[in-house]
Amino acid sequence: MLKRRLFTPGPVPVPDRVRLAMAQPIINHRAADFLPVFRACREGLQRMFQTESPVLLFAASGTGAMDAAVSNLLSPDDHALVIRGGKFGERWGEICEAYGVRTTYIDVEWGKAVDPADVAAALEANPDIRAVYLQASETSTAARHPVREVAEVVHRDGDRLVVVDAITAVGVYDLPMDDWGLDVVLSGSQKAFMMPPGLAFMGVSERAQRFMQDAKCGHYYFDLEKELAVLPSDQTSWTPAVNLLVGLAEALSIILDEEGLEATFARTEKLAHATREAMGAIGLDLLAPDAPSPACTAVMVPEGVDGPALRKTLRDQYGYTVADGQGRLKGKIFRIAHLGYFDRFDTIGCIAAVEMALSSVGYVHEVGEATRTATLLLRD
Amino acid sequence: MLKRRLFTPGPVPVPDRVRLAMAQPIINHRAADFLPVFRACREGLQRMFQTESPVLLFAASGTGAMDAAVSNLLSPDDHALVIRGGKFGERWGEICEAYGVRTTYIDVEWGKAVDPADVAAALEANPDIRAVYLQASETSTAARHPVREVAEVVHRDGDRLVVVDAITAVGVYDLPMDDWGLDVVLSGSQKAFMMPPGLAFMGVSERAQRFMQDAKCGHYYFDLEKELAVLPSDQTSWTPAVNLLVGLAEALSIILDEEGLEATFARTEKLAHATREAMGAIGLDLLAPDAPSPACTAVMVPEGVDGPALRKTLRDQYGYTVADGQGRLKGKIFRIAHLGYFDRFDTIGCIAAVEMALSSVGYVHEVGEATRTATLLLRD
Repeated sequence: MLKRRLFTPGPVPVPDRVRLAMAQPIINHRAADFLPVFRACREGLQRMFQTESPVLLFAASGTGAMDAAVSNLLSPDDHALVIRGGKFGERWGEICEAYGVRTTYIDVEWGKAVDPADVAAALEANPDIRAVYLQASETSTAARHPVREVAEVVHRDGDRLVVVDAITAVGVYDLPMDDWGLDVVLSGSQKAFMMPPGLAFMGVSERAQRFMQDAKCGHYYFDLEKELAVLPSDQTSWTPAVNLLVGLAEALSIILDEEGLEATFARTEKLAHATREAMGAIGLDLLAPDAPSPACTAVMVPEGVDGPALRKTLRDQYGYTVADGQGRLKGKIFRIAHLGYFDRFDTIGCIAAVEMALSSVGYVHEVGEATRTATLLLRD
Repeated sequence: MLKRRLFTPGPVPVPDRVRLAMAQPIINHRAADFLPVFRACREGLQRMFQTESPVLLFAASGTGAMDAAVSNLLSPDDHALVIRGGKFGERWGEICEAYGVRTTYIDVEWGKAVDPADVAAALEANPDIRAVYLQASETSTAARHPVREVAEVVHRDGDRLVVVDAITAVGVYDLPMDDWGLDVVLSGSQKAFMMPPGLAFMGVSERAQRFMQDAKCGHYYFDLEKELAVLPSDQTSWTPAVNLLVGLAEALSIILDEEGLEATFARTEKLAHATREAMGAIGLDLLAPDAPSPACTAVMVPEGVDGPALRKTLRDQYGYTVADGQGRLKGKIFRIAHLGYFDRFDTIGCIAAVEMALSSVGYVHEVGEATRTATLLLRD
């Protein structure tokens, strides 16, 4: 009997209550009973994003929102700055280039955070930059960029946007969109929202809305102005993913009204901290020790251990699915999720499984030490 | 966000697949599509009970089957011997007395196993005893009685029945009904069967079927001869719990065809052993150290700790529901389940929670030691 347990930084497990909500009979999205569901999602998302600005909803993955955040804000030959410190930083660049946007990069060593001074220098050298694209939490490296400081630099002078891929940051740690002056913040359902994939969310500031008026990049499905126009009537232009929204309303209620956002942040950070310490207790190194995101922990596969074999053992022998590295980190790290529907006992179990799998593939250590460490740190 | 986790020795968690099977549209129990479901249950139960004899199914709790095992086998003023070493041994006596059966008791210290020599002596002193009632696994004390040896004593001479409450033994450890010559073996759905409560099962040997012919105790709902007559046509006399049977067919398929009964026994014993060692590692005593049942582990509440407060903390602060002691053991022990749908990571989590709760209520120990011990013992 092998129980399957999912520990990837998205998708994450979905609470039974949310699954049961989504299993309800489908309703029509133009009928009256849909409106309160949509309204609950719309208002709940504003609380999650900590913004008074509208938060748009799309039937799309997070990448759809990233696409929209280029095609709706810039014109071909506009100049963008991309912070590239991982797979998702690279994706910002690919999208900008796909739309013919002139793109300047700040390349950050994978696992490190960008230095805001480098952003300031790039902006000084390229005063025509209209938007700066970065990740809050770079999921591929488990590093966290200093979004607040970058936003300050971006807005110090000039009329520019700071566009934040916060797919694994919203609901994970404190990232107040309005307080920090973030122009666009985006996320996806299969992360801290404890939902299946299928929904992308996008908060857009007034400044971002102004940029939309001049943007000339081609777009149709992702038309932010069109969506902004219908949003107040609790509608989307195209068919929404109805049952996902029913589930989202339930999930938002759990996060915002029952646990409370601050408690969610504290829980996630506590799990991340205990996991980092537990891995250290058995001699494992982290990829991003200096700027760790609490969304997930990227652990270096130790010398002499085969990364794919380790993950296969974890999955097939112990039932735990953790994430591989992406891009150049493939096979070199494994990533344990903390964001979403995980509690301390889930995390202790995962750490025990990692210890067992490491032992199975020949990594010599005192089996149980990591689990002991996590248990000690996760008590009240 | 408090995840609720159930660790009582019945009910136990129900696998998603079984829950989804039970959520299917209801079918009528006299219609053709019900017959293969019932047949799968009937045949699967024979494999679970390790018997060629019929295994009857009732819409009832396990106590219903206990009732039937008195009222259908004996007459008022018949003489029965009851092994009484816990709450469920007491129940055998209560049922016998309710039907006017003359009852002789062997009182066993709670937490200990009966000595087969005492059974032999009682039978010698009371040659008119027609049936011996005992538990295989006395759930209230987590002790295991030597059923095989008792059955040998019972059948050494005379025409007597050995009737085994195996509610927390079938599917928990090896208890071959036919090989050991057990006349009646009974169990319930909410135990090793990983099902909700609501179904009782009862294997009846040829000798037991012969006893039924002379039994004069009153009974109506539980009429074993009536049920035996309709069983081969895959029916029950009264309305069966249709969707529970649909779930049972799925659960039996998981146990028998996917995990395999031997592997189920090995898993359960491994969890029980690791739990006993883990509790010992932090200085806790067991109630039944000499004859522990792998169904659950009964842990003594340590000196200076309030039992109810400990269980309340475990439940309200950490989300784990473990069982209290019953009867005279109320508040003095807590019981952690191993039978049913539990794996090693469930058990490690529960042990971590017990450590944390003990620490929360003031029991001083090296937090993490029990969890470390279990992790070490539960690796492959």
